[in-house]
Order: sequence, then structure tokens, then C-alpha cells
Amino acid sequence: MSEVLSGTLFGVGLGPGDPELMTLKAVRVLSAAPVVAHFRKSGRAGHARTIASAHIRETATEAAFDYPVTTEIDFRDEGYISAIREFYTACAETIAGHLAEGRDVALLCEGDPFFYGSFLHMYDRIKAAHPVTVIPGITGMSGCWTAARAPITYGDDILTVLPGTLDRAVLAKHLEGADAAVIMKVGHNLQKIKEALKDAGRFNDAIYVERGTMPGERIVPLADLGECAVPYFSIVLLPGGRGRRIA
Amino acid sequence: MSEVLSGTLFGVGLGPGDPELMTLKAVRVLSAAPVVAHFRKSGRAGHARTIASAHIRETATEAAFDYPVTTEIDFRDEGYISAIREFYTACAETIAGHLAEGRDVALLCEGDPFFYGSFLHMYDRIKAAHPVTVIPGITGMSGCWTAARAPITYGDDILTVLPGTLDRAVLAKHLEGADAAVIMKVGHNLQKIKEALKDAGRFNDAIYVERGTMPGERIVPLADLGECAVPYFSIVLLPGGRGRRIA
Ligand SMILES: C[S@@+](CC[C@H](N)C(=O)[O-])C[C@H]1O[C@@H](n2cnc3c(N)ncnc32)[C@H](O)[C@@H]1O
Ligand SMILES: C[S@@+](CC[C@H](N)C(=O)[O-])C[C@H]1O[C@@H](n2cnc3c(N)ncnc32)[C@H](O)[C@@H]1O
Repeated sequence: MSEVLSGTLFGVGLGPGDPELMTLKAVRVLSAAPVVAHFRKSGRAGHARTIASAHIRETATEAAFDYPVTTEIDFRDEGYISAIREFYTACAETIAGHLAEGRDVALLCEGDPFFYGSFLHMYDRIKAAHPVTVIPGITGMSGCWTAARAPITYGDDILTVLPGTLDRAVLAKHLEGADAAVIMKVGHNLQKIKEALKDAGRFNDAIYVERGTMPGERIVPLADLGECAVPYFSIVLLPGGRGRRIA
Repeated sequence: MSEVLSGTLFGVGLGPGDPELMTLKAVRVLSAAPVVAHFRKSGRAGHARTIASAHIRETATEAAFDYPVTTEIDFRDEGYISAIREFYTACAETIAGHLAEGRDVALLCEGDPFFYGSFLHMYDRIKAAHPVTVIPGITGMSGCWTAARAPITYGDDILTVLPGTLDRAVLAKHLEGADAAVIMKVGHNLQKIKEALKDAGRFNDAIYVERGTMPGERIVPLADLGECAVPYFSIVLLPGGRGRRIA
């Protein structure tokens, strides 16, 4: 039996949502990929798959990985950690199976693959045994501050990016003196995030962006959002520029 | 005399340097632009112009704005502030002249237009009088952490982005407890940045990236860089993932 050369895993950053914000490189790699994989919430179409759809070959083998649990709960929960760890290991085995048989795999990644996100768990499991190429993408936050027409940082502003999964007190501490801040993973954490912003005296500066650059995009001052459930694909922005001296 | 409809100013994010990391949208807008403007260091080709070159129309009118002073000195210097303020006002007038005559202007922006950078000064001067459309781009830092194969944030890591123009003590204070950090605008600030990293006990975690994704790219542990002058297009990364619990 002849040795098969390993395929390459491509972590393909797709950008924030608008398919026109994909890079030339992402389009080139996707258009050639024999296997396309992506993560999604069980039963949903999957944002990544939707963004990439025009560029996936008709003949491509597709692998959709359905999260066994929500991705919104606290990262410190032990039950969550073991369930998701097993899930990621199984996904990595599926990907490695294709690679071992010589097929390249394009793993679709929302935003930028190396900025939070599930791709990292595949990267860490696969990179020792197979070639991995990462294609950066526009982050969700860049898409959101552009959609909101809110320049995020001027001059010597410091930018702090905070996952909304953190404790209220931790969030408040970092928000208080922040020049500019972005809060990711809003979803079920919305109420806590609002309280942390109030604790920090920054509630009225905050902008809420839901599905930035995608169909259904919604942008409002956080103070005008009211009491409502919001999706995981939402972000809170605290634009900088207060200290700008070259006006 | 008939009224002329204003042209639109497009702030075109070009990404970190590799021309294949431009978006489909940036390419579409550039390919149609009758006027293309960009900032550059006096006498240099200009990174932005180089990245975009394949997509600029032969018939396009070009405006190159040469910085009158370095962009590396302290933002708090009064002489710098007044020189650069006058310069930006003159550039905005040139752009507004084209717009008033009905011509669209594509202003080339390295990375993402709303993340630091000179575009903001044009945006603030022009948006009240003329339509402005911003096209996000992959930030330099995303290009750099991808080139360095260094995932920047896992799970609930906090990311802190620091301009290297800040004081040593301010840098050290933010670096000390940081999960993940990026230091921009290295250039002449290299020595100070090294000292701040040492003060914070983080010097040995730092990665130096020069011209990420461009010709001449250089990636080394900061501790191995030695004593040398480095260009403005360089960055220091402190990757996260130390607290990652889903390994
Ligand atoms: C697990 S992180 C993945 C981030 C992604 N790798 C990136 O580069 O943006 C998911 C979070 O990104 C944010 N996000 C990403 N794209 C977004 C968009 N288009 N609109 C609003 N939020 C977005 C949301 O806060 C969401 O909870
Ligand atoms: C004025 S800021 C502009 C940032 C830009 N708008 C962006 O989104 O990346 C310039 C700084 O960005 C960083 N930078 C941008 N692109 C880079 C690259 N390809 N390699 C290294 N550093 C880069 C450097 O630290 C540089 O001093």
C-alpha cells in the first residue's frame, strides 16, 4: 500500500458576516476545498456556512459539527467543560480522518480564526500531526464598529476586549478606566453586562450591535435597547476618542 | 450652472499587507474609483499604495499625502500636534475638492480604517459635508498573530491593545495582569516597550513581528531580537491561552 500525503487543514476566516467582506484568499481556498467543515448550533443553518455558501464547490463533502451544549454558559462550569472537550476531540478525529486520506479540509470560521472561537480547539489538536494553514479574517468587532460608524480607537487610546462571560465585578473593573472597550459574547450575559457598565459609570456611552454586517443587523444605544432577550451574535462597543488631541 | 451631486469618500481597509488579504468589497470599490488617495512617509512608496496597486485603474487620479513629521513621536508634543493638524486639514480639503466636483475618492487605509490610523482624521473632517462609506479590513494585529501562528485569545481571555507611544509605567501597569496583549507602533518605542515588559515580568512571553504578511516579514521571540533599530511597521504580541480550560 502506498503512503498517502496528508491533506492540509485550512482555518478559513470569513469575516463578520457580509459575504463581500471575505478575502480573496479565503475565496480561493474555499473554491478548491474538497471537504468543508463548520460548527453550528444544533438545528440552525450556521452563520459560517451561510457566509461562505457562494464559494463552496457543489462536489465538496460537507461536515457540520453540531454543538452539544450552548456556548454561552460559564467557561468555569465542569459539566460544560467535559461535554465540550469530548465534542471537540470527536470533531478533530473526523477532520484528521480526511487529512490522513490526503484530502484538504476547509474549516469555516466566523471572523478571525485566532481570535476566540472554536477553531483554536481544532488547531491545538491537529497541528502536531498535519499541516495547518490559517487565513485571517475581519473580526466580528471590526465589522460591528464599522457598521455602527463608531471609530473605536484614536491616537494613544487603549482598547480592552472583554468576553461577556466574565463576572460582573471583573467586567466593571476593566470598563471603569477604559479608553475604548468591546464586550463579546453578549447573549445571555446582557443583563450582567448592563449592570457592569452602570457600576463603571459607562452605560450611556455603550452601543449595542446585533448581527453586524448581516441581514437583520440592529444597532442602537444600549440604553435604548430595553428589556429583551438578545442573540449570541451581538456585541457591545464603548468607542474611544475621548482623549484625542488632534481633532 | 447645474448642481453637482457629491462624490462619496470610501475609507478602504486593505488588511495587513498581503494583497490576497484584501476583501472582495475593497477590490470592487478600488477597481471603480476615479480618485485614489493615500498617506505615506515622505519619499517612500507607501505600504497602502503597494498593497492596492493591482486594483487601481490606470486612469485614476492619484493623490499622495506625505506626512510632514514622523508619526512615531509622542502624541502629547504640542509642536507635533499643530503641524499634523494643519496637514490633515489640507488633505481633507483636497479630498473634499474632488467630492464637491462629483468624483468618488477611495482613501487607502492599512488594516482597518476605524482602528487607529490617519483615516479617522479625514472621517471627522468630511462626514458632515459628504457621504462617507467605510470598508473594514483585517487589522495589522490579526495578520501578525496569524503569521506568528500564535492564537491570541482563548475562552474568557481579556485582550488589551496598547499603543507603544504610551509611558513605560502605563504600559507596564497594563501588561502586568494581561491575559493577552498587543503593542502597536513599536518603531522608536522599542527600548521603552522592552523595559515595560520586563517591569511587568512578561518579557519572555513576547513575540516580535515586523511587516507581518508582507515581503520582508520577520518573526522572532522579542528576547532574541537584540539591540537594533526597528521599523514603524512592527508589533509585539503577548498571546493568551494561559487560563484556557478546554484543552
Ligand atoms: C466565539 S466569538 C468568535 C469571534 C470571531 N472569531 C471573531 O473574530 O469575531 C463569538 C462572538 O463574536 C461576536 N461577533 C462576531 N461576529 C459578530 C457580528 N457580525 N455581529 C455581532 N457580534 C459578532 C459576538 O459577540 C459573538 O458572541
Ligand atoms: C497607525 S497604526 C494603524 C493600524 C491599522 N489601521 C490596523 O488596522 O492595523 C500602525 C501600526 O499598526 C501596526 N501594524 C499594522 N500592520 C502591520 C503589519 N503588517 N506588521 C506589523 N505591524 C503592523 C504597527 O504596530 C504600526 O505601527
